[in-house]
Amino acid sequence: MSDPESPDLDLARRCAERLLDSDEASKRLGISISVTAAGQAVAVMSVRDDMLNGFGICHGGYIFTLADTAFAFACNAYNDVTVAAAGSIEYLQPVHGGDRLEASAVEDYREGRRGFYTVTVARGESDVVALFRGRSTSRSEPLLK
Amino acid sequence: MSDPESPDLDLARRCAERLLDSDEASKRLGISISVTAAGQAVAVMSVRDDMLNGFGICHGGYIFTLADTAFAFACNAYNDVTVAAAGSIEYLQPVHGGDRLEASAVEDYREGRRGFYTVTVARGESDVVALFRGRSTSRSEPLLK
Amino acid sequence: MSDPESPDLDLARRCAERLLDSDEASKRLGISISVTAAGQAVAVMSVRDDMLNGFGICHGGYIFTLADTAFAFACNAYNDVTVAAAGSIEYLQPVHGGDRLEASAVEDYREGRRGFYTVTVARGESDVVALFRGRSTSRSEPLLK
Amino acid sequence: MSDPESPDLDLARRCAERLLDSDEASKRLGISISVTAAGQAVAVMSVRDDMLNGFGICHGGYIFTLADTAFAFACNAYNDVTVAAAGSIEYLQPVHGGDRLEASAVEDYREGRRGFYTVTVARGESDVVALFRGRSTSRSEPLLK
Repeated sequence: MSDPESPDLDLARRCAERLLDSDEASKRLGISISVTAAGQAVAVMSVRDDMLNGFGICHGGYIFTLADTAFAFACNAYNDVTVAAAGSIEYLQPVHGGDRLEASAVEDYREGRRGFYTVTVARGESDVVALFRGRSTSRSEPLLK
Repeated sequence: MSDPESPDLDLARRCAERLLDSDEASKRLGISISVTAAGQAVAVMSVRDDMLNGFGICHGGYIFTLADTAFAFACNAYNDVTVAAAGSIEYLQPVHGGDRLEASAVEDYREGRRGFYTVTVARGESDVVALFRGRSTSRSEPLLK
Repeated sequence: MSDPESPDLDLARRCAERLLDSDEASKRLGISISVTAAGQAVAVMSVRDDMLNGFGICHGGYIFTLADTAFAFACNAYNDVTVAAAGSIEYLQPVHGGDRLEASAVEDYREGRRGFYTVTVARGESDVVALFRGRSTSRSEPLLK
Repeated sequence: MSDPESPDLDLARRCAERLLDSDEASKRLGISISVTAAGQAVAVMSVRDDMLNGFGICHGGYIFTLADTAFAFACNAYNDVTVAAAGSIEYLQPVHGGDRLEASAVEDYREGRRGFYTVTVARGESDVVALFRGRSTSRSEPLLK
């Protein structure tokens, strides 16, 4: 999968593979990930019935978790262990069982150990259901062995 | 469980029972809830191995989900269907498999349809691991039938 | 200043002129505004000594105010009275007396009455000192008479 | 002003005096400060006509600045130079020229170098117009000489 013409994307993808290997949380939620550029990632999840809350709509925690996962893969693109320092979400529309959600993370700003990301969560092509912002901190430790 | 000397708490607890009945998401995560006053709730969860991410620490999404759950029960105390409009979390310390987390929600301000809540997530008695803020919107619809 | 080839930008600029006319707060701070596209605006301010706090650095409130101003002009581009519902800022570097700050607002998402914007505040060309996020609400009332 | 029976409040007040001495920004806005306990402060400001925006209501930046000032005095109570790392505000009601605003800051959590504060901004006794949250970072440097 190495691509000598795009070393940044190549590195980002190797970091993602390393993270995915042992990511039980994402696997268990059925989240699939693709890294589209350094600092960008897309996470996809279908809403299951066991993700619904007492109102019969998707528990906000699962929408947040999906967005947070896209964020984690976007910010871990540089072979430097990077963790979430903070995250916030605005819920724009209710999400229902069976909905297929796509969370697209982009990097707004990164400098030194700090990074800031926006994740748009949409149902289908363009029906935006939530907007997430994440702040990351890197540890200056290589992610790849 | 009716308590004629504390009608507000009594109403808050009946609202919580109504919500819990059909809350598959909280049940599946093993979250237990107690409502301590109108506008206050405590949610407890033990971190399982399937909640760990690729770094072997608890996926932030699960910590958020626990806090969001405490928030949901705190803001649904008034027999008025109330949903999360937004939530934000600051991660203060990593959380490990086996940790028992307690999320305590208090109401900062409520007026008309808007409410604002702070949730402190602690490991054990007082080791704070995350701080959550939630904004709620109520729908002016009764929750109890 | 009307430009028949770019009606959206033309409308955005007429809205900005209407707002600027009576904006004492921006004038008094020496803020200048340019609208670069519908949903985008740049606000520029030089930090005066009377904007410094007890540590001798620029009071965060003035950096916020500059960013909030860029946000206000970005979200009032559609001839619909639009006000800030919320704003948040991350301070990345201290700002000093004499610094010239440029706040660039872009629209992340807008649908119905809600809009979300990111404003990057930089010193000089590219030395980012703060990152601002704003949420707007429109009133469905024309701004232009 | 030293009070041997309340050494924490005494220290907090000496820190506030030190900060106020050179705080041109607060003075210029006519803000008055009182420190009511370590980690708590109240800032009061009357809205002048030169604080109004193009809609004839108080520019959100000035409301933020007032809240941010109360926050700064609350978090600088421990003789350790402490600066704002981030702030966010929810605007709940429009504010008009002539309104007298009172911003009350309380400490939600402080540990090591990080602190989190909530500031409630009210008009008159209890008419809440905005809710502010601040995150502070201390530098492990004494504030008092």
